[in-house]
Amino acid sequence: MEKPTFTPIETIGRKGLIDRIASSFDRHDEGLIFGIGDDAAVLDTNRQGHPLLSSEIYAEGVDFDLTYTPMQHLGFKVISMAVSDICAMNGKPEFILLNLSLTNKISVEMVELFYEGVKRACEHYGVQLAGGDLGAAQAAMNVSVMVYGAAKQPVYRSGASAGDAICVTGDLGAASCGLMILLREKLHFDTTEETVLDPDLTPFEYVVRRQLVPEARIDCIKSLESADILPTSMSDITKGLSATLNEMMTASGTGCKIFEAALPVSPETRHTADELEKDIDTFVLYGGEDTELVFTLPEEDVKKFSELFKDFVVIGKVEEKSHGVKMQTAEGHLMTLT
Amino acid sequence: MEKPTFTPIETIGRKGLIDRIASSFDRHDEGLIFGIGDDAAVLDTNRQGHPLLSSEIYAEGVDFDLTYTPMQHLGFKVISMAVSDICAMNGKPEFILLNLSLTNKISVEMVELFYEGVKRACEHYGVQLAGGDLGAAQAAMNVSVMVYGAAKQPVYRSGASAGDAICVTGDLGAASCGLMILLREKLHFDTTEETVLDPDLTPFEYVVRRQLVPEARIDCIKSLESADILPTSMSDITKGLSATLNEMMTASGTGCKIFEAALPVSPETRHTADELEKDIDTFVLYGGEDTELVFTLPEEDVKKFSELFKDFVVIGKVEEKSHGVKMQTAEGHLMTLT
Repeated sequence: MEKPTFTPIETIGRKGLIDRIASSFDRHDEGLIFGIGDDAAVLDTNRQGHPLLSSEIYAEGVDFDLTYTPMQHLGFKVISMAVSDICAMNGKPEFILLNLSLTNKISVEMVELFYEGVKRACEHYGVQLAGGDLGAAQAAMNVSVMVYGAAKQPVYRSGASAGDAICVTGDLGAASCGLMILLREKLHFDTTEETVLDPDLTPFEYVVRRQLVPEARIDCIKSLESADILPTSMSDITKGLSATLNEMMTASGTGCKIFEAALPVSPETRHTADELEKDIDTFVLYGGEDTELVFTLPEEDVKKFSELFKDFVVIGKVEEKSHGVKMQTAEGHLMTLT
Repeated sequence: MEKPTFTPIETIGRKGLIDRIASSFDRHDEGLIFGIGDDAAVLDTNRQGHPLLSSEIYAEGVDFDLTYTPMQHLGFKVISMAVSDICAMNGKPEFILLNLSLTNKISVEMVELFYEGVKRACEHYGVQLAGGDLGAAQAAMNVSVMVYGAAKQPVYRSGASAGDAICVTGDLGAASCGLMILLREKLHFDTTEETVLDPDLTPFEYVVRRQLVPEARIDCIKSLESADILPTSMSDITKGLSATLNEMMTASGTGCKIFEAALPVSPETRHTADELEKDIDTFVLYGGEDTELVFTLPEEDVKKFSELFKDFVVIGKVEEKSHGVKMQTAEGHLMTLT
């Protein structure tokens, strides 16, 4: 494997780097009067719906590890995670601000790869990079993402009612399962004489992809709009299903009962959990980083929505608060989710 | 000096810390339907003017040093810097998102002090904390601030015309001069046996305050609105006067001539520069971190504005592009500003 060129950022400077990044982004300028290059980005005045604001921070060595995370994937992922927060409010993302603190271990080429991933994600989700900041860091890279979106009718975590069906998009547990594989390979690498971390991850392609380049479920939000269906409550599952359900039920003043047998899990995730000799529930209930949506619908909307959107399942039902937040296991036992 | 209590963040956890912070902020809810506690903040739909978005990042050890920066001052400063970017567009700040990566050297009490400063700044500027993110960092703290504001009529760096007067608020060079004093005291501390960094900074109070707790010039923006005056171009001076003027003149397709003798410098800054045996221009032209505004006004507006707002001076005039970006020194020489 040829070693990539390493141009230190100091050779082109902060302004040189910003100019390179800005020039690689098309100026669609949809809804944007001025993007990168002044003291602030300026949006036009004719704006629809409720503005939504969200932000997330990622520290190298804690939230990502550059030994097994390609820069372009990191760029894609942080945009997906931000977009997922807007989807979780029944909104669509419009603008992104991106702040980076860069160490001297990061080259101009690595930053360009990062923004390639950012650009690909922006095009994928129809969102525009409107600004941000670049600075230096001593020991570890840091990424902050801010997203501006809009929702005609925001959906909160708090609107669920007893009797509503609890729905989940896609499948669960894959992202955290993929992380375990990457950590295992890194550990193996750290304890051998190999000089390049380049393991054969083909058998784990699905779970690793879900960890490194997750996709936000904007398709579900668009389908809800097309079907004219408003969930009673919604969140994304990036903190894990169990924690998310607890937050939603607390906010809604309700309890719930979900069924272990109904939880959507891909065969690849099951296979990987077996290979790791881990209980699949570890990933499915507590894993986190799944950019899927959990939402509640009145029973009559479930059928209507399923005619338009295929990639979701009902995993249980909202109950009265006194019921608690419970899961019925495959063996028929009721366990409390914490 | 009694040693302050140090409660490790892990004893109350991420959620415990977020709950503490959220509970200390009043819910004014002006224009805000939902703030901290869901996947995104939700603003109301009846919004005036052009939305403005800006963000900045601060890395410990690069942009701030906790050995001489009290946490409450850091909290105040990062909000001031964000607000300054919105003022620089002729806008008013409305909402802040704050992302922190925290190391295990940061206690719960230190985070609370930081947010005390944030709160004081939010009240001072009439801006609301609407959300953010908290995470861990291995080696250095990191702060990202995102600000949402609005401007009826945004002012860019690009609208200056030959003949316009160049105006500057307040005085220049103090923030960077204050930094030099703090760095000198830190160096002294590092090379002695003292165990607590607690120097007598009384003679340098003004410049140190301007470094640690700068104030954004929202008063100037409000006065411009009251006077019904729209600058032709504007920016803040956080990157230093010389760099800022170059950016504005390039964006405007103009040159300019400023007068060294007209540059506003406080007696305290002059005194400190003398004490440091440094040329005052180092701070005034290239210093940076001054949350002052530079703006251009047609000649007839200068007098009108000065009747309402006292804390600005004219430092020179916009010229044709061919003139370059020049300063006439006190001795009468013309020098190019780079």
